[in-house]
Amino acid sequence: MAQEAAKAPAVVRDLLERNAEAARALGAELRARPPRAVLTCARGSSDHAATYAKYLIETRTGLITASAAPSVSSVYAAAPEAADVLCLAISQSGASPDLLATAEAARDAGAKLVALVNAAGSPLAAMADAELPLWAGPELSVAATKSFLASLAVIAQFVGAWTEDAELDAALRELPDLMAKAHASDWFVAQQALAHASSLYVVGRGPGFAAAQEIALKFKETCGLHAEAFSAAEVRHGPMAIARDGFPVLALAQDDATREGVEALAADLAAQGAAVLIAGGSAQGAISLPALSAHPLLQPILLVQSAYPMLEALSRARGFDPDRPPGLSKVTRTL
Amino acid sequence: MAQEAAKAPAVVRDLLERNAEAARALGAELRARPPRAVLTCARGSSDHAATYAKYLIETRTGLITASAAPSVSSVYAAAPEAADVLCLAISQSGASPDLLATAEAARDAGAKLVALVNAAGSPLAAMADAELPLWAGPELSVAATKSFLASLAVIAQFVGAWTEDAELDAALRELPDLMAKAHASDWFVAQQALAHASSLYVVGRGPGFAAAQEIALKFKETCGLHAEAFSAAEVRHGPMAIARDGFPVLALAQDDATREGVEALAADLAAQGAAVLIAGGSAQGAISLPALSAHPLLQPILLVQSAYPMLEALSRARGFDPDRPPGLSKVTRTL
Repeated sequence: MAQEAAKAPAVVRDLLERNAEAARALGAELRARPPRAVLTCARGSSDHAATYAKYLIETRTGLITASAAPSVSSVYAAAPEAADVLCLAISQSGASPDLLATAEAARDAGAKLVALVNAAGSPLAAMADAELPLWAGPELSVAATKSFLASLAVIAQFVGAWTEDAELDAALRELPDLMAKAHASDWFVAQQALAHASSLYVVGRGPGFAAAQEIALKFKETCGLHAEAFSAAEVRHGPMAIARDGFPVLALAQDDATREGVEALAADLAAQGAAVLIAGGSAQGAISLPALSAHPLLQPILLVQSAYPMLEALSRARGFDPDRPPGLSKVTRTL
Repeated sequence: MAQEAAKAPAVVRDLLERNAEAARALGAELRARPPRAVLTCARGSSDHAATYAKYLIETRTGLITASAAPSVSSVYAAAPEAADVLCLAISQSGASPDLLATAEAARDAGAKLVALVNAAGSPLAAMADAELPLWAGPELSVAATKSFLASLAVIAQFVGAWTEDAELDAALRELPDLMAKAHASDWFVAQQALAHASSLYVVGRGPGFAAAQEIALKFKETCGLHAEAFSAAEVRHGPMAIARDGFPVLALAQDDATREGVEALAADLAAQGAAVLIAGGSAQGAISLPALSAHPLLQPILLVQSAYPMLEALSRARGFDPDRPPGLSKVTRTL
């Protein structure tokens, strides 16, 4: 996990170059014949990348973006109304049966199927109309790191090309260097705070919610910690009831219109007794973690990159092996 | 909470009669001019009702159903591509500012806005093209019960009318009596098992995932218990790592194509050391909770109804007041 996470900046530098032409071509096709909606198909970490795609696509194109519900195609065998829909299927292996069933049902119903897959020669890529490979190389740790960050970078590049966003495009060129800096961030204070925790909330908003989902899953997989991700918008609708008496909360902020709300929530949680860490912002009563300035759509990538070394160290400190989480395997064959 | 949950069967009997004509009329309109996609707008418990709507609509009509992401309209001010989209806005109060912003943006972009609201004379209903009221009456407990079950029943009736599903329609006529029986279910064994727990997974699949979400939120709000809901399809993609060494899991099954998978997951979790309770099915190593036979789309309603008295009793046994969860208020004014 440590080695693979450290490789993410180089992976992203490489994929941005390799996929540039494919992203431009796909973007031009989508501008020439705009889809009427977007459907994402993914599970696990890749589904968190789909969350990131949903925010980018909805805020940048206005297209309604739905996550394919587990089981609708694969178990209930319902056929989606997918003519003129863009289906983004995201997967490390491109081999999970439920994902293949959902992607195939969408394609057969008329969707344009675009595969974001890491493994070369996957069944998912073989059935797709277009491919944006993740180029992350073999990933041996069960806990995905470089392939996850690669999927976010592919999505950002693709949406940038689709919407001809010169600002995002320029920011992406700085991304690999910033990721290398983020990887060297010192989040030891978080490791200390969570050394003996059993539960945790990880809170983000907008594209930062995807980072929250991924970090929460990594806490579960590698640290034996029951971490749950929330959109900052949901926390006040019930979940904040248990965030008191030292209950730990990791809040993720980015430099956009959501920042103020995330900081206000962090302050309110600290005021009611939660032990709040905040990255990318600051809040009264909360401990700030180092974070880098960047284009707000890319900050979630940097926050996850900053979190990986802390997660890896916390895992070992809590007596786990981050590369071999108990009871998990790399390719999950669910239906 | 106890009194309001007990009223749910009568509330549902009443609303099925009151809304029958409106549901028929709306269904006929939607058949005459089918929407091209569905967008749901909701927060908290109402968002769990939106999950239920997504499963029913996607499996019964094939229409892609997306949840409006928190903040896309209300914070980022992005305009959705919502022409010919059906927007279902679900809310107890019909007054939460982020919900109003999202629903208004969808309506202004051409969506047909249908409001499912409990409070009479709400701003949300005032801006809607059609209304399917919840008719649950005043709800004083912060933890929503009868209004949540009312929203599921309204959704089932509406989808039944839309798709002219005679079988579902007939099953709905039996629903109030079954709910009364479900309310009398003895889930004391669950209360005992969770008396001293601090964490919990609640797992469902298909429409049962909505029930899992709602029960998990109630554990948080009323019992101080960190309960997290999962689709059974997601648990093997990482989260099962921590479900061992007596970690409690409540699995919800219904009599459809998902049942076998939920039971297999429950058995696997029990085999790796989780303390598994299962309702609506059975699994080796798991304790079965009483559940009623019914139309599979209505079983999630019955499971939630069965869970409420257990939740209310567990809350008091753990020293909480279920009617006044710490730090929460009935109408949540988030942006």
